[in-house]
Amino acid sequence: MAIEIEQPSVVGLSNIAVSETHGENSPYFAGWKAYDENPYDELKNQSGVIQMGLAENQVSFDLIEEYLEQHSEAATWGNGLSGFRENALFQDYHGLTHFRKAMASFMEQIRGGRAKFDPNRIVLTAGATAANELLTFVLADPGDALLIPTPYYPGFDRDLRWRTGVKIVPVHCNSSNNYQITTKALEEAYSKAEAMNIRVRGLLLTNPSNPLGITVERPVLEEILDFVTRKNIHLVSDEIYSGSVFSPSEFTSTAEILEARNLKNSERVHIVYSLSKDLGLPGFRVGAIYSYNDQVVTTARRMSSFSLVSSQTQYLLASMLSDTKFTENYIKTNRQRLKKRYEMIVAGLRNAGIDCLKGNGGLFCWMNLSPFLETPTKEGELALWNTILHEVKLNISPGSSCHCSEPGWFRVCFANMSEKTLRVALKRINDFMEKRRAADQGILFSSL
Amino acid sequence: MAIEIEQPSVVGLSNIAVSETHGENSPYFAGWKAYDENPYDELKNQSGVIQMGLAENQVSFDLIEEYLEQHSEAATWGNGLSGFRENALFQDYHGLTHFRKAMASFMEQIRGGRAKFDPNRIVLTAGATAANELLTFVLADPGDALLIPTPYYPGFDRDLRWRTGVKIVPVHCNSSNNYQITTKALEEAYSKAEAMNIRVRGLLLTNPSNPLGITVERPVLEEILDFVTRKNIHLVSDEIYSGSVFSPSEFTSTAEILEARNLKNSERVHIVYSLSKDLGLPGFRVGAIYSYNDQVVTTARRMSSFSLVSSQTQYLLASMLSDTKFTENYIKTNRQRLKKRYEMIVAGLRNAGIDCLKGNGGLFCWMNLSPFLETPTKEGELALWNTILHEVKLNISPGSSCHCSEPGWFRVCFANMSEKTLRVALKRINDFMEKRRAADQGILFSSL
Repeated sequence: MAIEIEQPSVVGLSNIAVSETHGENSPYFAGWKAYDENPYDELKNQSGVIQMGLAENQVSFDLIEEYLEQHSEAATWGNGLSGFRENALFQDYHGLTHFRKAMASFMEQIRGGRAKFDPNRIVLTAGATAANELLTFVLADPGDALLIPTPYYPGFDRDLRWRTGVKIVPVHCNSSNNYQITTKALEEAYSKAEAMNIRVRGLLLTNPSNPLGITVERPVLEEILDFVTRKNIHLVSDEIYSGSVFSPSEFTSTAEILEARNLKNSERVHIVYSLSKDLGLPGFRVGAIYSYNDQVVTTARRMSSFSLVSSQTQYLLASMLSDTKFTENYIKTNRQRLKKRYEMIVAGLRNAGIDCLKGNGGLFCWMNLSPFLETPTKEGELALWNTILHEVKLNISPGSSCHCSEPGWFRVCFANMSEKTLRVALKRINDFMEKRRAADQGILFSSL
Repeated sequence: MAIEIEQPSVVGLSNIAVSETHGENSPYFAGWKAYDENPYDELKNQSGVIQMGLAENQVSFDLIEEYLEQHSEAATWGNGLSGFRENALFQDYHGLTHFRKAMASFMEQIRGGRAKFDPNRIVLTAGATAANELLTFVLADPGDALLIPTPYYPGFDRDLRWRTGVKIVPVHCNSSNNYQITTKALEEAYSKAEAMNIRVRGLLLTNPSNPLGITVERPVLEEILDFVTRKNIHLVSDEIYSGSVFSPSEFTSTAEILEARNLKNSERVHIVYSLSKDLGLPGFRVGAIYSYNDQVVTTARRMSSFSLVSSQTQYLLASMLSDTKFTENYIKTNRQRLKKRYEMIVAGLRNAGIDCLKGNGGLFCWMNLSPFLETPTKEGELALWNTILHEVKLNISPGSSCHCSEPGWFRVCFANMSEKTLRVALKRINDFMEKRRAADQGILFSSL
């Protein structure tokens, strides 16, 4: 006899990780909602919201399109589909050998050849989201923690914690030293975790930083490596924006430091990469873990069964990334274009009276509106963010969503739109700031 | 000062789930090793091991190849790459709308139109592996359990337990009633879990069954639905072989039962599907969850960020599955070919003196060698399995790896090879059985 009882419970919903950062009360959600309901369009909706909260790289698509036009066979398994069967069946968690080789080579090129990558140490995952979660599963037990310098990518709160049960202990950085990580801050965060009886299993470093748009300086990297060695913990070095650093010489990969140290203590280091940002292909879901630890490679590879990359996509990208003429030109041109965009937005903001942290990479700048907050608090920051979203019609990301310890900083993305749209956005900010200044001076311009 | 300490621990490795079913001492591992070291090749290695442990569908590739030849635009974003940018950027966890529509329609076609699927209830995942794990995360807490009828797919021991911390409680079925699930067996398993203070959150049903190659009969499905309703638990209905049932009328989807009951109690039901088996595209990593529960749809969709399907692959398959002329012909022809293969292997085995469970779907048959075991135990089964692997040179799957409660049953795959290779395999089995019979009669043939 079937008895009616209450609905069976859905356990995953009770977890707080999602509601905090992506729930209906989060700025993330509100920003997307405002944009979705009224998206800016150059022709059809000039008063709409401009999306500046999306770290997407659209500046170099023409180069990929050109490659695809000239190499249509890359998308269709060569001539006569001979390779289709093999490709359709290929679900080996090792990934296609020639794709892993091409990935390793691409990662080396991005680092100017200053680091070597062994294709056999590459584990493929369906995006960096899966890669970071997978490493968290492998390196930590539920209840353990990872240290993460702030400000950090808000998605980590969901990606690293939701299903793993692992905690995040923030390492607070601030503008006084341009947000560089210090040993003092690391030690403080570690001690705090110890005091709370939380076992720290590793440090997750994002280099270049999202949201800061800056690289981690070499001496800082050295200190970080000493720190994780001293504490006997892991280091996850998320380098998904490494190819988006404007000048290759300004980026030092953790891999370079390890090689300079003859790979001593490298077994605790794991690099995360992805083609979503540098190549602008987030839809294709290609991420990678590069680990110097044999056990981690083996375990991560088995675990990658839960998030394998489509073999069709591996096949296409293996062709593209094996073409060094294409990759060299792409890497160089993409850097130049991102730099141009960055300079354009920074100059536009400066013109409006706004300073930014001096950046050198990424798809965003870190904008300082702290002088313009009504109150120097998170609430003050969110009030200004709300005004910018609903009056200036720009969806940007408040620093508090990235756990920034100083109120008034915002991440502004510049590579997910046309230059023309960026100019519109800058004009809007300029007008807003002028209006504010006028109001501050007690002078109200009439629109008549 | 950097102090040398022991290697930092890799937590994921300490979990037993992998070592049991896929570790170096498992038949799974040994079988693959033997095959990898000496794979059969029609021309180059006629004495090699024939892989019959792989549930792959290679019998209908020509139909897909024909489609691709006639629709090369499906693989290259139409004419002039106009759609490339949009596609490359598409990482929305809702999936491409026209792909979800095509998937819903394909699932309906497979069920002969006897069930309807709403595209908005489809959550895409990178394969059914990810779908089943994701549902386990959503429906159960660590320490909770799922009931699973035996024999079941050995991968579940890894997929459902490894990262979720959820347990599996087997529901023992046996050959006395052709392995159909009974309410008694369900109640016994449930009581056993209760006695061990384990909270049962759901039942995972594989219909058609892997490894049995049979569908669940309609009255049994009705009983199962009554059982999960009575216990107020979830039902995950894994129907990834639904399009591989030889006659469409022999398969009843859980969806049909729910519709016959006007969707009463449907909020506890979640169907898993995939294109890996029915279309033979495991490399493309396309799985799906169809849930009748709004909360599960919402949560699973968010969680699918960890295992999204490549948008390139969605684009290609959306075109293919939207072509009803193609899908109708494919579904029909594929069923006919699988049936032919099944009849061929069953007749060949019968000829060799071996019975099989009467199957009606899937890429394998369930072979009964229990009369030929030296001892009627798991050890006896593995001894015979070992002989078949190393002497007969066939890699098949022992029932014990599927937690079968009766020793002597084996899963034999027939769709991952050519008909010619299948004939070689059948000849080998026949020779082996003849030799055994001769030995039993005390007559030893000389090879002179």
